[in-house]
Amino acid sequence: MSDWKHFQEFFLHHPELDMSLDLSRMNLTSDFLASMQPRCEAALADMKELEGGAVANPDEKRQVGHYWLRAPRIAPTPELRAEIETTLDYIEDFARRVHSGEVAPPTQRRFTRLLSIGIGGSALGPQFLAAALGSGDDKMEVVFLDNTDPAGFDALFEKLGADLASTLTVVISKSGGTPETLNGMLETAEAYRKVGLTFAQHAVAITGNGSVLDKQADKEHWLARFPMWDWVGGRTSVMSAVGLLPLALQGVDIRSFLRGAQLMDVWTRDGATWQANPALALALAWYRAGDGQGKKDMVVLPYKDRLALFSRYLQQLVMESLGKAQDLDGKTVHQGIAVYGNKGSTDQHAYVQQLRDGLNNFFATFVVVLHDRDGSSIPVAPDATSGDFLNGFWMGTRQALSEGDRSNAVVTLPQVTPLHVGALIALYERTVSFYASFVHINAYHQPGVEAGKKAAASILKLQGEFVGGLTSEWLGVSALADKLGADAETVFLLMRHLGANPRDGIQARGQGLQLELRRG
Amino acid sequence: MSDWKHFQEFFLHHPELDMSLDLSRMNLTSDFLASMQPRCEAALADMKELEGGAVANPDEKRQVGHYWLRAPRIAPTPELRAEIETTLDYIEDFARRVHSGEVAPPTQRRFTRLLSIGIGGSALGPQFLAAALGSGDDKMEVVFLDNTDPAGFDALFEKLGADLASTLTVVISKSGGTPETLNGMLETAEAYRKVGLTFAQHAVAITGNGSVLDKQADKEHWLARFPMWDWVGGRTSVMSAVGLLPLALQGVDIRSFLRGAQLMDVWTRDGATWQANPALALALAWYRAGDGQGKKDMVVLPYKDRLALFSRYLQQLVMESLGKAQDLDGKTVHQGIAVYGNKGSTDQHAYVQQLRDGLNNFFATFVVVLHDRDGSSIPVAPDATSGDFLNGFWMGTRQALSEGDRSNAVVTLPQVTPLHVGALIALYERTVSFYASFVHINAYHQPGVEAGKKAAASILKLQGEFVGGLTSEWLGVSALADKLGADAETVFLLMRHLGANPRDGIQARGQGLQLELRRG
Repeated sequence: MSDWKHFQEFFLHHPELDMSLDLSRMNLTSDFLASMQPRCEAALADMKELEGGAVANPDEKRQVGHYWLRAPRIAPTPELRAEIETTLDYIEDFARRVHSGEVAPPTQRRFTRLLSIGIGGSALGPQFLAAALGSGDDKMEVVFLDNTDPAGFDALFEKLGADLASTLTVVISKSGGTPETLNGMLETAEAYRKVGLTFAQHAVAITGNGSVLDKQADKEHWLARFPMWDWVGGRTSVMSAVGLLPLALQGVDIRSFLRGAQLMDVWTRDGATWQANPALALALAWYRAGDGQGKKDMVVLPYKDRLALFSRYLQQLVMESLGKAQDLDGKTVHQGIAVYGNKGSTDQHAYVQQLRDGLNNFFATFVVVLHDRDGSSIPVAPDATSGDFLNGFWMGTRQALSEGDRSNAVVTLPQVTPLHVGALIALYERTVSFYASFVHINAYHQPGVEAGKKAAASILKLQGEFVGGLTSEWLGVSALADKLGADAETVFLLMRHLGANPRDGIQARGQGLQLELRRG
Repeated sequence: MSDWKHFQEFFLHHPELDMSLDLSRMNLTSDFLASMQPRCEAALADMKELEGGAVANPDEKRQVGHYWLRAPRIAPTPELRAEIETTLDYIEDFARRVHSGEVAPPTQRRFTRLLSIGIGGSALGPQFLAAALGSGDDKMEVVFLDNTDPAGFDALFEKLGADLASTLTVVISKSGGTPETLNGMLETAEAYRKVGLTFAQHAVAITGNGSVLDKQADKEHWLARFPMWDWVGGRTSVMSAVGLLPLALQGVDIRSFLRGAQLMDVWTRDGATWQANPALALALAWYRAGDGQGKKDMVVLPYKDRLALFSRYLQQLVMESLGKAQDLDGKTVHQGIAVYGNKGSTDQHAYVQQLRDGLNNFFATFVVVLHDRDGSSIPVAPDATSGDFLNGFWMGTRQALSEGDRSNAVVTLPQVTPLHVGALIALYERTVSFYASFVHINAYHQPGVEAGKKAAASILKLQGEFVGGLTSEWLGVSALADKLGADAETVFLLMRHLGANPRDGIQARGQGLQLELRRG
């Protein structure tokens, strides 16, 4: 019975949501919990400030307002509140008009498909929601462009085929300057043009007020423009127009989605102790597992096919928020928690071998859904359904991991509904906020992303010079590098890409390090 | 110029495949390489034995023959050689007959879709290949069932709709006893039955000779049966019927796929030094990165949408092979390497923040494809295409990671063709074999998977007793646990799943820990 007592102590349950969190296998000793008491109080105080409108992202001098999106009445000013509420009404109204055919493509009766172009926070939320909450009855089928892969563009347009004429395209970029999204927009505009259609008549923008994209959409009379506020970060934008517009267009009840987040927020805002606050409890469990230094990877295993993208969603939310070089005092800390996973029981057949027997460098989180399916089940074994097996498998894996001293947590949802998915996201958003307070870092900026962007920009600049530098003479790596005064390795990597994708009369001969280029 | 010299030294290139491996940023010092010389020799010797037919999986007393699948002439006996070659002919012949309509569904002219039911090694290979090598011109569109999620089954059958009548179903299970696959088969048979069709007339089996599944397929006169040999492990079965049959049915040239693996095998078999052997070199890099103890996660970033599933494929290949408790001498070692990733540049917007600034607990592998697309590209910026951006992004990210002292490797393919994908898989298969030799473990068994399976079986057994133990009286967790003499926690988890999915007149009341059940 002592195990059962222990389980009950670490089992948190919310009556209205009927969601629960089980941390009984996370090794939360009373000594550890007592030692964390001051950090818990500080985390709750930090959160109060943040929700009250403090500039919680000091680097970018921004407020952090994603918690207001589902509770506009707590927004720090009446103007912000009104903006959130008006946008919400506008989203629902626009979706209704698209569904009714009042907003329609020029050559078709109705928009039947939605193409969402965005990357990072402008893709992962909508993709997760489309998979989690979509069904064959959706009012529009959603497809995504989330990269700048030319073959990826071609494959999508091939798949869409003639349906492009009834496709509504949403371009999502806060700054309007994200190159992958911009490229996706230009390639998509070209695809419409090729079949005699005008992109603007099919296009909607979700972007910052006054951004390049906003101005273009305005000038070209796109069908609609929705705001991305500077006080909402990309990875927490799923409850702004970024997530809500695609969801409403799919035909999902976005108010219910927001209400789920709201209920979770109340639970995780008002609970002053970890026993009364699952986000605080989960943040403590993360800290315990990885010693507050991310020593353990977070393996996320939803036992439900439609939640398979949840770990990708969390990858961004957790890793981009927590993966920081400096703490708030400027001390070098190299924080973070690595997140991966796909779905159970599928992943049991992929890497549970290592989880159970190999490196103990992770903690697992099972995401369990109680409701198996709508309608009845056939027996697949005496007295057992497919769903009984799925349930048996996570329980069995949890038991096997626990026996091997591998920490694990369980988040349980009664069903996969808008309400519960909203609550699930809100649980993790606040857990990330609390954990960031525990380890004293800024969870709301992403300075490291700039380094790669800057390097990429200088590489593209070099490519421009490079193409200009070619003559009718065959030149190898060293010769070209000398000529351009550039790093030979960079020149080589650019040469081989140009050689494989000739343009402007550029010719290539030779292979590998012996590659040579000239202008033909 | 010294950087360039260093780069050239660690750049391995294969002329016929035009594939390369760049390990210049993996910190392979000459001291380290010299110290590993004895292990390299041992690994090459181990491989020679394995390829010669030694029992390389001592626990299961099996030969390990996946390298023979693409070079039947090196199989250790003429019988094995003949079996491989005959099966290959049979696969091609069967695919031809399906495409021509000679093998057709009872109510339709042709099979136009393929449903593949399998999990783990029987799903990840086919899924990766379908995404990597499929196109809109495929002769059959492939869909997958790889779990036992009832809602997942329903969603797939809803999506297939009336097309079920022209769907060929392949059931893949070596033992024939994998529950997820068996459940998928039973649910699929029921879906056919519901619309008046007979599953057997649409079904093909890929299974071990004489397995339960083999017997059933024989008895019910399924359309065909293909062998899964006991000397091929699930995670290396992609070049047996498991991977080849779906691929041939899609319409892909499987001989070219096998030839790519063959060419890579020759390169990685004959190269006696790391300079001449990319699998040896890559295994050294893995060892170097994680100190031979998996201290660094392997982040795999293919910069090509169609390769997005490669990291999931590698997750199984690497983690199930290397994640072991004991070494070959029975010493407890808890080995492994954690693998995750999705695709670039998409993932740059998800977690490169952490890779660049946060925890240095990983090494990255960029998988680069030189050919952007078939056909020409529009400019998306002055002098730059979408593909130039994609190329600039991996180069920029590599530079940013290198500046931050994060190790990274680059595998480059000229194009994503059957030839090059075959070679890519073969490179990693042999790298895993070599690394396993380095750390002295058995890469070819998976004893840890059994623990979870056994626990799941005992849980399902308890569920049976449990349902029998219910009466007309309301019983809570403790009362039921006492009555069954079972662990209260297990009883609770079973109760709540039964309560959410009532059958046999079971009724539930209350919530969370207060849940009660009775028979109504």
